[in-house]
Amino acid sequence: MERKNISSAVIHRLPRYYRYLGELKDVGIERISSGELSKKMNVTASQIRQDLNNFGGFGQQGYGYNVEYLYDEIGKILGLNKSYNVIIIGAGNLGRAIANYSNFEKRGFVVKAIFDKNIELKGQTIRGAKVYHIDELEDYITNESVDIVALAIPKTQAGDVANILINHGVKAFWNFAHTDLDVPGDVVVENVHLSESLMRLSYNLAKKESEDK
Amino acid sequence: MERKNISSAVIHRLPRYYRYLGELKDVGIERISSGELSKKMNVTASQIRQDLNNFGGFGQQGYGYNVEYLYDEIGKILGLNKSYNVIIIGAGNLGRAIANYSNFEKRGFVVKAIFDKNIELKGQTIRGAKVYHIDELEDYITNESVDIVALAIPKTQAGDVANILINHGVKAFWNFAHTDLDVPGDVVVENVHLSESLMRLSYNLAKKESEDK
Repeated sequence: MERKNISSAVIHRLPRYYRYLGELKDVGIERISSGELSKKMNVTASQIRQDLNNFGGFGQQGYGYNVEYLYDEIGKILGLNKSYNVIIIGAGNLGRAIANYSNFEKRGFVVKAIFDKNIELKGQTIRGAKVYHIDELEDYITNESVDIVALAIPKTQAGDVANILINHGVKAFWNFAHTDLDVPGDVVVENVHLSESLMRLSYNLAKKESEDK
Repeated sequence: MERKNISSAVIHRLPRYYRYLGELKDVGIERISSGELSKKMNVTASQIRQDLNNFGGFGQQGYGYNVEYLYDEIGKILGLNKSYNVIIIGAGNLGRAIANYSNFEKRGFVVKAIFDKNIELKGQTIRGAKVYHIDELEDYITNESVDIVALAIPKTQAGDVANILINHGVKAFWNFAHTDLDVPGDVVVENVHLSESLMRLSYNLAKKESEDK
């Protein structure tokens, strides 16, 4: 597929379009105008048209958007028409929460294995995925195809584990460790820094409170 | 404190500055230039100066930034000089993961109680916070002061629970449910939509792969 450079702000919004379109599809709505979608999503209609134009636009004047078509097209753009082998490093609460999201599998993200340094967890199964000891990671990664690694371990361990995985050809990390991974240019990282998210909330709360005074 | 309107892009970056400055402080570094900070953070030095200028700027020509002072000031801007009573709705893996983050408490976010619809969890304690049945929520919120509510429940339940809480005066939600909450203007919401984050990763992975071909 030909791809042009899309701004990261648009990419950031794309999964949200996908979610709303999926919900419309689920309740049997076949087409929607940018105006209606705008009201639902609390984004201006012109923003919607502009965003979707990045992908050649899928709307037709006077008809609006075909929900299912647009949903499928955005899904393809997001790479959801493929299947990904995912492994999770860390079988703590967060690793388990990730493993238990059935929605991820529906989207093509299949959790194949989970690794933890706690030897007592070895052999357990979480939603069909076996828990291995972390010492088995190199062996596993040498023999199995892994597309995405979720790092649900403390920041002190994340860098070392990521380096081992990169040396074995891993190209994508979903990083929950509270640190920025130092990776080569051909490796992609998506960070979920929960404490930064919480700080943004307290910032906005403090701001709101100071405005109300 | 006087506050002006800061762009959301700057707010988004602020917790990251806070993290890096905290790490510098922890290893005893007392001052740093925007150039050095730039190298560490992989952001241009002019971006750093521009961002920090939003808050009156804390740098001095030829000296750079005083790490501890800047760390404390950004902490205040982020509202981290206060203490927040947090309750968590949902004692599943995600709720437990949130409750177990000791770093949150260090920053002033104190988990006071956890609510779940599973009656068997009632009376358990997670890192010092008691688990209540969800039916006890209204009673609790009527009698206790709650600053922030973390919603770690499925999207089908999130809206109803949020409405109850809003009616009892809750002003801040940390929303992990995969839906957009419909809230009044004086309520702040910070979303953590994990599946959207995963889609951004698959987008970037698919993009990288198509470039490499």
